[in-house]
Amino acid sequence: MAGSPHEGLAARNEEPVSDEKPPLLVVKLGGAEGLDIDGACADLADLARPPIRTVVVHGGSADATALGEALGRPARMLTSPSGFVWRYTDRAALETFTMAVNGKRNTLLVERLQAHGVNALGLCGLDGRLMIAAHKTAVQSVEGGRRRVIRDDFTGKVERVNDGLLWLLLEADYLPVIAPLALSTDGFAVNVDADRAAAKIAAALEADTLLLLTAAPGLLSAFPDQATLIADLPRGRLDEAMEFAQGRMKKKILGAREALAGGVGRVIIADGRRPRPISDALAGMGTTIQ
Amino acid sequence: MAGSPHEGLAARNEEPVSDEKPPLLVVKLGGAEGLDIDGACADLADLARPPIRTVVVHGGSADATALGEALGRPARMLTSPSGFVWRYTDRAALETFTMAVNGKRNTLLVERLQAHGVNALGLCGLDGRLMIAAHKTAVQSVEGGRRRVIRDDFTGKVERVNDGLLWLLLEADYLPVIAPLALSTDGFAVNVDADRAAAKIAAALEADTLLLLTAAPGLLSAFPDQATLIADLPRGRLDEAMEFAQGRMKKKILGAREALAGGVGRVIIADGRRPRPISDALAGMGTTIQ
Repeated sequence: MAGSPHEGLAARNEEPVSDEKPPLLVVKLGGAEGLDIDGACADLADLARPPIRTVVVHGGSADATALGEALGRPARMLTSPSGFVWRYTDRAALETFTMAVNGKRNTLLVERLQAHGVNALGLCGLDGRLMIAAHKTAVQSVEGGRRRVIRDDFTGKVERVNDGLLWLLLEADYLPVIAPLALSTDGFAVNVDADRAAAKIAAALEADTLLLLTAAPGLLSAFPDQATLIADLPRGRLDEAMEFAQGRMKKKILGAREALAGGVGRVIIADGRRPRPISDALAGMGTTIQ
Repeated sequence: MAGSPHEGLAARNEEPVSDEKPPLLVVKLGGAEGLDIDGACADLADLARPPIRTVVVHGGSADATALGEALGRPARMLTSPSGFVWRYTDRAALETFTMAVNGKRNTLLVERLQAHGVNALGLCGLDGRLMIAAHKTAVQSVEGGRRRVIRDDFTGKVERVNDGLLWLLLEADYLPVIAPLALSTDGFAVNVDADRAAAKIAAALEADTLLLLTAAPGLLSAFPDQATLIADLPRGRLDEAMEFAQGRMKKKILGAREALAGGVGRVIIADGRRPRPISDALAGMGTTIQ
């Protein structure tokens, strides 16, 4: 891909149309260790300037795990019958999660971005009903080959995004930084998957680009062999990608599918451990799905 | 005081003026134990409806102390040469504070308000540069009669409020819920006093009423004798009140003075432990300063 990342982002808006809107980028910064958060913040300070509008969604699993351990409440993971792994979130774990992810990760990200001159504004999905989630009052978990019903899990799946609130802030030149908590339809705070939350947000805003940063170079056809990086994945091959994607990469593929189906121009899965992770991804590193 | 709390609040706007603005209430919910948070949320659900606009500021000292103890980092209080007591906030304590206050207290307050149908939106002072604070790189503390210089204290004093952000949200019918953290002029997150932050916010918005809820019936002329409650304190007697106010009540008196000097109509210091603390305060319980 030639030219600067700015050109790449702006390309979709070059046609002289009357309802032209500024290019919009949604970036998901991972919660896993090893991501260069300060690099990403410096990168955003260069890239996320008018007319480009940017929304950041972040994880915080490593922070939540570390805080749980420090409090003597280690994380417990559950596995669904179809193989998805998620954090068991009873009410105590939800409080740990909100402290680590909304209290620490979100606030420190906003602090870093502000230090770089970006007018960041932290939110979680409860704020102004930004994300409304479905919440199952009973879910199945497989433990040692046996199915068990879990009834106190505060994990949800984002169903609706208050895009009006995001536009209100974007048009006033704030950069929203969003923690993966949502308000459930039954009125509780729930932990949601950050990749899929980012996908829902990107779709609600009809973003040009959804960028999912992770602790890997992109989608690998034969994990963990980094030589098998897929640079371009046509949308039609997403089903196939679900077969070889490993672990949390499956959620990114699901998120990519949801985002593209919702009108997002392209999804990039790229390496967040690089010093300029966003510029590099927009310049063509990682896996581009469109 | 006769009539409903709504009448009391609206009274200042009864004159038929062209630039009439809706009545605006700033409520500070204490961080100390014993406050009836759910009662306050239910009360806000009844009161904080258009045309009345409301901003909530909260503390969280009890949460921060509890989390610090659970993490083996108990709170350490400092005393200034002039007798003010504050929480020593090195970088580790700042992270504990932001987790407990911004992560837990703020998020759970927003959750409770949303459950009551109030479209609350949580912020801290870092978000969109809502509160900019002065931050002293060296402060004096008195310990055992000796003065000591403290150089790593992340405590600040709010100097500027981004009232434009609050109006943007209020005019879109969101109820801002604000945690007492600010962005220092040198670019760091700092812990700020919630009473004085509420006063600065009320002044920036030219609020009709600043209501400071606390774990006491109001200002007592002979603490702790509750029979010495002062129902009405003329503004001119604030200096005198600084003499008999005890402990944290001194900060409320300072906050009241700052708010009134900044154009706030009246300040009420009232009991947050009652089941309907806001209605009761607006109906004349507690201490009204104007």
